Amino acid sequence: MSLPSRSHGRLSLRASLRPRELGAAPVLHGAWAARVVTLFPEAFPGVLGESLTGKALKDGVWQLETTDLRRFGEGRHRNVDDTPAGGGAGMVLRPDVVGRALDEAMRDTPADRARWPLVYLSPRGRRFDQRMAERFSRTDGMTLLCGRFEGVDERVIEAYGIEEVSLGDFVLTGGEIAAQALIDATVRLIPRVLGNQASTEEESFSEGLLEHPHYTKPAVWEGREIPGILLSGHHAKIADWRRAMAERLTKERRPDLWRAYCAVRDMDPDGDREL
Amino acid sequence: MSLPSRSHGRLSLRASLRPRELGAAPVLHGAWAARVVTLFPEAFPGVLGESLTGKALKDGVWQLETTDLRRFGEGRHRNVDDTPAGGGAGMVLRPDVVGRALDEAMRDTPADRARWPLVYLSPRGRRFDQRMAERFSRTDGMTLLCGRFEGVDERVIEAYGIEEVSLGDFVLTGGEIAAQALIDATVRLIPRVLGNQASTEEESFSEGLLEHPHYTKPAVWEGREIPGILLSGHHAKIADWRRAMAERLTKERRPDLWRAYCAVRDMDPDGDREL
Repeated sequence: MSLPSRSHGRLSLRASLRPRELGAAPVLHGAWAARVVTLFPEAFPGVLGESLTGKALKDGVWQLETTDLRRFGEGRHRNVDDTPAGGGAGMVLRPDVVGRALDEAMRDTPADRARWPLVYLSPRGRRFDQRMAERFSRTDGMTLLCGRFEGVDERVIEAYGIEEVSLGDFVLTGGEIAAQALIDATVRLIPRVLGNQASTEEESFSEGLLEHPHYTKPAVWEGREIPGILLSGHHAKIADWRRAMAERLTKERRPDLWRAYCAVRDMDPDGDREL
Repeated sequence: MSLPSRSHGRLSLRASLRPRELGAAPVLHGAWAARVVTLFPEAFPGVLGESLTGKALKDGVWQLETTDLRRFGEGRHRNVDDTPAGGGAGMVLRPDVVGRALDEAMRDTPADRARWPLVYLSPRGRRFDQRMAERFSRTDGMTLLCGRFEGVDERVIEAYGIEEVSLGDFVLTGGEIAAQALIDATVRLIPRVLGNQASTEEESFSEGLLEHPHYTKPAVWEGREIPGILLSGHHAKIADWRRAMAERLTKERRPDLWRAYCAVRDMDPDGDREL
C-alpha cells in the first residue's frame, strides 16, 4: 500500500492538505470517513448534507466520498451488469466491475475490518440497529457498496469478505437510501456531530426501551393539556413517569424488546409493576 | 371539503391539468401520491429522483409533494420547536405548528385512513416491512411527517390519529431518510414503476425467505467459478438449487424468519431437509 492520501475525497480538502509526513504507515488519520460505491453519486450527500450532519460534514468532523461504479464498467457503454446465470428476471452486478470499484474505494484503508468495515446493503444481511451504529461510529471509517437491480455476484461478496447489512425486511430499488440511513445513524454518534444537542433518545434506546411521549408549548392546545406531572417541577417524579410511560409503550408495541428488557432486569414480563 | 385539486403539487403538472369535472366527490384521482411534511423539502426527491423511481415520477406514474414545516412556524423566526415540558435535552416539535402543516398536507384527501394513511416516522412505531409496503402501495397515496430533534408533541399524534412507523431499532437525525426508504419500497410495487424489470427478489421475500445467491458473467473470475448447476440448463434443478440455497441462508442468518417459514409449511425448523 502507498502512503496515506485522501486527495481523492470530494469533501475532504482539509485532509488532503495534511502533510504526508504525518503518517508513514498505511493508516488514515483524521475524521471518520464514509466511502460509498454507487451508480448514483449525485444522490450524495442528499439529506446528510442538511442539518447537523451537514454542518459537521462541512466542518470536516466527518468525510464523505463517492466512487462512481459506472467508471469501472465494461466496454464502450460501461456496462456494470449482466443477466443472471441460470436465468430469471433482473440483472446482476458483475464481479469484475464491482471488484475494481472496491479496490479504488478501499485504497489506503486499514486492512483490519474492525477498523474499516466493508459493507454491502442487502435485505439478506444482518439487521442494522443502534448497537451496530455504535460499532461503526468507533471505526476509522467504512466503505459501503450500494446494490441495484437483482443484486451483486456472490463471488465478489466472498472474495472481499463483505459484511452484508440489512435495513429491514423490505426491498428497496437500490442500496443508496439504506446507505444514507446507516451513515446518518452512525455519524450522529461521533463526538462533535450533534454538539450540545445530544439527545436522550438513544439513551432510552440503548436501555432497550421505546421513547416516552414528549410535550412542549403551548400548555393547552385544541383543548388538550400537557400531563400535569410534567409541569410539577418534581424532577424525580417526572423521571419516574417517563420511565413508566416508556415501559408501557414498549410492552404494548414491542413485546420482543420488552421481554429482553425484563430478562436483563430479572423482571416478570407479564407482571404489572405499576404500569 | 372542496373539489379535488392537485395543482399544489410540485411534480404533478399532469394531474393539475385534469378537468375538475372528473370528480365531484372529495376523492383524489390519478397517480399514487406521497405528501411529505419536512423541514428539509430540498432533500426531496433525492435518490427517489434517480433510476426507475425517478423515471416513473417524471412520467407521472406517482407524485411527490413536500410541505415545508418552517412555513407554519411561530413568530418572526418561524420557530417550529420548543423545550420539552418537564425538562431534559433536545427540542420538541410544537403541536400547533405540526397541526397546521398537516392540515395543509391532508387537504382534499380521503378521510378513510385505509385509503390515505397518515404516518409519522419514529423509532417507536411499528416496524416497516414488505407487507406494509404492499399495503401502502394499494392506497390512493399517503402523508408522511418527518420528525427532527427529540420528537413531536404527543398531542398532535393523538389528535390526528397518526400511525407511527419505524424503519428499525436505530436513531436517525430526522425522518427524511426513513420517509425516502418507505416511499421507495412502496412506489416500486406500483404497477408500471419497475416496468419489465420486475424482480424476483420480492417474491422470495414475500415467501419469507432471504434471496438465493446471484451470479453473472464472467464464468470464471479471479479463479472463482459460477456453480455448475446454474450453467446446466436444467430449469427445474436450478429452481431447486435456488430454493435450497435460499432456505439455507435464511436458516443460518435469520432463525426468526426460518421458524415462521417452517411453521406455515408444517416443516421441522431443526430438520435438515437436504440443506
